[in-house]
Amino acid sequence: MTRSEIESANTTILSEFQAASHHFLAIPRVGGRAAVRMDSHTLETIEMCADRILEETGLRLEGDQKTLDVCRANGFNVTGDVVRFNGRKLRTIIQSAAPSVFTIRGRNPQHDTIVGSGRPPVVAPVYGPPNFIDTDNTRRLASSNNYRKLVELAHDSIAITNTGHMLCVLNDVPNEQRPYEMALAHLECSDKPFLGPASCPDSIKNVSWAVRQVYNRPDSASACNLLHLINSTPPLVYKSSSLKCLRAAARSGEGVIVTSYMMLGATSPSTTAGTLAQGYAEVLVGLALAQIWRPGTPVILGMFGTPFHMTQMVPAFGDPTSSLIQLYSSELARQLGIPSRGDGGSTSAKVDDAQAGYDGGRAILYALASGANFVLHSAGWLEHGRTSSYAKFKREADALSIHIGAKLEVPPPRQSLDQETIRELRRRWRLNLQ
Amino acid sequence: MTRSEIESANTTILSEFQAASHHFLAIPRVGGRAAVRMDSHTLETIEMCADRILEETGLRLEGDQKTLDVCRANGFNVTGDVVRFNGRKLRTIIQSAAPSVFTIRGRNPQHDTIVGSGRPPVVAPVYGPPNFIDTDNTRRLASSNNYRKLVELAHDSIAITNTGHMLCVLNDVPNEQRPYEMALAHLECSDKPFLGPASCPDSIKNVSWAVRQVYNRPDSASACNLLHLINSTPPLVYKSSSLKCLRAAARSGEGVIVTSYMMLGATSPSTTAGTLAQGYAEVLVGLALAQIWRPGTPVILGMFGTPFHMTQMVPAFGDPTSSLIQLYSSELARQLGIPSRGDGGSTSAKVDDAQAGYDGGRAILYALASGANFVLHSAGWLEHGRTSSYAKFKREADALSIHIGAKLEVPPPRQSLDQETIRELRRRWRLNLQ
Repeated sequence: MTRSEIESANTTILSEFQAASHHFLAIPRVGGRAAVRMDSHTLETIEMCADRILEETGLRLEGDQKTLDVCRANGFNVTGDVVRFNGRKLRTIIQSAAPSVFTIRGRNPQHDTIVGSGRPPVVAPVYGPPNFIDTDNTRRLASSNNYRKLVELAHDSIAITNTGHMLCVLNDVPNEQRPYEMALAHLECSDKPFLGPASCPDSIKNVSWAVRQVYNRPDSASACNLLHLINSTPPLVYKSSSLKCLRAAARSGEGVIVTSYMMLGATSPSTTAGTLAQGYAEVLVGLALAQIWRPGTPVILGMFGTPFHMTQMVPAFGDPTSSLIQLYSSELARQLGIPSRGDGGSTSAKVDDAQAGYDGGRAILYALASGANFVLHSAGWLEHGRTSSYAKFKREADALSIHIGAKLEVPPPRQSLDQETIRELRRRWRLNLQ
Repeated sequence: MTRSEIESANTTILSEFQAASHHFLAIPRVGGRAAVRMDSHTLETIEMCADRILEETGLRLEGDQKTLDVCRANGFNVTGDVVRFNGRKLRTIIQSAAPSVFTIRGRNPQHDTIVGSGRPPVVAPVYGPPNFIDTDNTRRLASSNNYRKLVELAHDSIAITNTGHMLCVLNDVPNEQRPYEMALAHLECSDKPFLGPASCPDSIKNVSWAVRQVYNRPDSASACNLLHLINSTPPLVYKSSSLKCLRAAARSGEGVIVTSYMMLGATSPSTTAGTLAQGYAEVLVGLALAQIWRPGTPVILGMFGTPFHMTQMVPAFGDPTSSLIQLYSSELARQLGIPSRGDGGSTSAKVDDAQAGYDGGRAILYALASGANFVLHSAGWLEHGRTSSYAKFKREADALSIHIGAKLEVPPPRQSLDQETIRELRRRWRLNLQ
């Protein structure tokens, strides 16, 4: 399962694929006679190649016996923790159960968002940065105060319809309490939908339970309260934590965004073609497992591919290769009949300068142009995703409100969460009483 | 022929059009099931509305009797200087004579570019700014030295395949000598193709003649040496100078880019729909006149629409409305079977900051996505097009070389123009002998 093996498995499609992709970004052609070879033959070739990777190389599913057992029960070939899959069967599992359209609910039902075909994309802010640049333009380790400031910014934006998760890291909160502090910040500072944690199964179950209590709305088969971000670990691995979190989210009645975040040349082949084939193989497994654990689980397909800079040893965000992967990824999701993830705003720029504007602008526009149904990282991403920027957050949220088209009606006033509920959640989650 | 008359003529298509355009920018969908209503019905509606403007309101063709005579001779209804046209007949004139693909030749034939369907777009830099910001970040009135610096930058860029025209204004050169100084700068500092002047018929004829001598290549029906930028004066006017320059360019054997540059709410209706109908009516007239003066004249269709900021009294560059007009404009050109103009890099930003990066990035990406065949303003545009920026020029040229896909082969060395030719042209054009 080395990189060279994966690359050699993909050689059959490389040459024609690269010829097609040369003109691809230059002339995507939104209408008219398309130079874009987004035709069934190309997509079938990616699928065929992914199927061969699944069948011959398989994926390593680490440290979760229940997942291995269920794979075996579904007829897949389990050897140690390596599972070899039939791609066609994975797609059948997904297509027969996963919804093409579903609702993510908010504390205020007026903010519910529908995800899927023909709907405007759901837009969520940056996810993951350990640092924060506030209005004083100084970069510091991020804190829970910064976090609430960003959630409020997200809530106040017309364009941002999901306040996300981990808008920055709560460095001032003990690790195990962070999922709860974040959930509480989203509940207190906003009544829009948000994402759930993805760090451990217990936090997923606990937050899901609490949100259900707070929302106090009847369960619905076509809706979830939270989406959880479940990533594979390329090349061709799911870590124990991801597998357990995926199961916890599905069984809690929530949805999952299954993503392969690949660095081309480091954790995936250096070619766009090979990366798409590997990524598609990886996400098919996660998406199918979600349906196995609970048929009907809302799922979103994501592939986020960034070339790895071989001398600087960092991913080179803002490269057009990522846009190409975005366009194909959304198309592969449409072929499967499920919503797709887009990635906006990514850049390697360290300050919110012209590079940040251009890189981020390109990423978000191609995410939107691809028809992605849920766009993550839409506002605030700076410095390889290592920093949340207040200025960039505000600039991108404002630009998006024009770009996507602001609603003219006045947004509903924010419904505040009552103090007794806040105290109750703080006690239950053993958080500092403020 | 007031604005309210034009707007009322367009009311029939407004409502469905705006409903379609709401989702348009949010979900253009490069592939797959398009939410984009770039369908034949929508395009036919624009056409129908343009035809009604041409037939009922007509265009004012100012101060050029020859044009009025030829309109009458072609059966159009001439009243004073207002000409009422049959749109179908204009399209027939264009479609029966204008080439769908043609070559723009350079002094070095290795730099010849083919414009038209299926080819990568020809890329040209900013056109028109009176000011220049050099590497010292200070904004000054532009000079001929600045001009040569920009032409060299354009020549050295892999992405820029046409060094353009009026990259900045030669404030240190008398007005009547500027077209010649510019032409000489393009010939001396580059051997790539460039654009010809558009200020007066004499300079067009003289520069065309001289370039033909310098290139010393046999005439070809499917090629031109220069393209000249011919603009209408919205709403629904062509000035005397434009009409005469159009005729001079066509009769000199050169090509023309016919553009309606509209400011929505000021020189065109405030709606996208109305602006497209008006702009299409205007460019049809210019494109047809080019074919009347010389059948087979290479032509490019352009519509550049920017909302006018009603409180600041400036066009608001970087608005997504412009992208929407770009997408439709390229599609209308494809329907006609002729190449289209794209507009990249435009922004209202005064310095090359995040706004400049985002605005300019959006404009150029939608120009490329629209399938435009000739992209003007691709590098250097700043401050409503009032300033050429060295930094932005370099940044955008570099980004485009990655974006469009740099050729891996080493570009041919620049062939310098011999001193005797330079002296001869300076004498002929009565320029300072340097």
